[in-house]
Amino acid sequence: MKNVLLTVMYDGTGFSGWQRQPEAPTVQGELERVLSQICGERIQVDGTSRTDAGVHALGQRCSFFGNFGIPVERIALAANNMLSGGMNKKAVAGRIYIKEAISVPEGFHARFNSLGKTYEYRILACSEPDVFSRNYCYQIREELNLNAMKKAAENIVGTHDFACFQAAGGQERKTTVRTIYGLGIEESFDERNRRHLTLRVTGDGFLYNMVRIITGTLVDVGKGKIQPEALADIIESRDRTKAGHTAPPQGLYLKEIYYSSDDMMRAAADLR
Amino acid sequence: MKNVLLTVMYDGTGFSGWQRQPEAPTVQGELERVLSQICGERIQVDGTSRTDAGVHALGQRCSFFGNFGIPVERIALAANNMLSGGMNKKAVAGRIYIKEAISVPEGFHARFNSLGKTYEYRILACSEPDVFSRNYCYQIREELNLNAMKKAAENIVGTHDFACFQAAGGQERKTTVRTIYGLGIEESFDERNRRHLTLRVTGDGFLYNMVRIITGTLVDVGKGKIQPEALADIIESRDRTKAGHTAPPQGLYLKEIYYSSDDMMRAAADLR
Repeated sequence: MKNVLLTVMYDGTGFSGWQRQPEAPTVQGELERVLSQICGERIQVDGTSRTDAGVHALGQRCSFFGNFGIPVERIALAANNMLSGGMNKKAVAGRIYIKEAISVPEGFHARFNSLGKTYEYRILACSEPDVFSRNYCYQIREELNLNAMKKAAENIVGTHDFACFQAAGGQERKTTVRTIYGLGIEESFDERNRRHLTLRVTGDGFLYNMVRIITGTLVDVGKGKIQPEALADIIESRDRTKAGHTAPPQGLYLKEIYYSSDDMMRAAADLR
Repeated sequence: MKNVLLTVMYDGTGFSGWQRQPEAPTVQGELERVLSQICGERIQVDGTSRTDAGVHALGQRCSFFGNFGIPVERIALAANNMLSGGMNKKAVAGRIYIKEAISVPEGFHARFNSLGKTYEYRILACSEPDVFSRNYCYQIREELNLNAMKKAAENIVGTHDFACFQAAGGQERKTTVRTIYGLGIEESFDERNRRHLTLRVTGDGFLYNMVRIITGTLVDVGKGKIQPEALADIIESRDRTKAGHTAPPQGLYLKEIYYSSDDMMRAAADLR
């Protein structure tokens, strides 16, 4: 029996999210279709994170097992070739790209064995809308006060009951307590001198829409609608209506999944 | 009678090109739909360039006229609001964005009055496919020799019969002689240290697929498949089969249209 762990990058635009659905294009559905053809048997993949429609991944992980003949080291090439529409197409990239396929011990599971993850949220501060990045970032015209956002973010790091940052509609959770190991906001400027803010957050787990609500809340702080000092009370309240708006899906990227505590702590320490 | 000139930016992904078609989404069709609603009468826009499916525009121009009531200075805001799905949507950018709408004298026509244009073609040299930019550049894994490409490009500047760079299937042209005022290839590196080559070409007119065939030919030079010294003979031959491949549409951007000879010459002089 082979057990395989994939690292997968995808553009979430046009997909109805990760999770398989009978009538809609999803990342899981597309991966299973291609892997089933390559392996010659029906493949089911288990993803670490069920990303929503429009959300992207730089390093989603998923695992699958079976008694197929294809060597594990050939899976990525064969699948990427199919995912990009075959060798005859000029375009080298499809919407999904398998970065790596490795053998893992029997019993290893992409989700149950993961210790945490990092999400990235991309904001573009632009006076003029950008048609080309509309599916890849949150475009905001208003001035954002980065220092206020950073001050507010400090309150989020640590172990808290994050019920205030949870949207209705997710799967039932036993607890809304989570640990955020690090939350950084990086400022950069592109060749047209436009300001980009990239939020990165590492934690042991995230509630439904949690990163998008954290981002929306920090954006509201940046606009002056919420004071950074209010964050502690908002978290304490456990009340979703006290937090800010939900940032749109297209700015969100699942960046990395951790199976080693050391890797996760190093990543969290790098955030600023 | 009002006569209006628009400067339009669009993401060509998902559009069946510029030109109106009864059953397919096109940029012209979408603009005419929105402008007709705003103006309260049936609007027909005349574009300067009929871009192909998947081709983008940074500065397409089009003009239209009519006896509508809306002041010209309000057209861009009203149309952009509709094009981005209305004020209630979080996303500020639609697929089309009108940068400017100005009044022009009666008889002015976006296409007939234009003196030339600049196209841009974006190449990403990447060892790993990039799922996020697949609709916005030509991704090439092979090493490209930039000096050879620049040397070859020198042969293209000037007035020539460019039949070798014309694809079949375009509209009938009286002559295949065109003047290229400038052709530059700029190299840059992004934050992940990936190499970008941006080709910009300014001319008084372009044959069908001409910029994509010039790019494909220069890419073939960069790969060593065509020698830079061969360019003069290729042009002289007037034979499409002697030139290189046709680069894919998604790397191509209509950058600027000129109504002033001075503006065009300045833009051409800036290319390197």
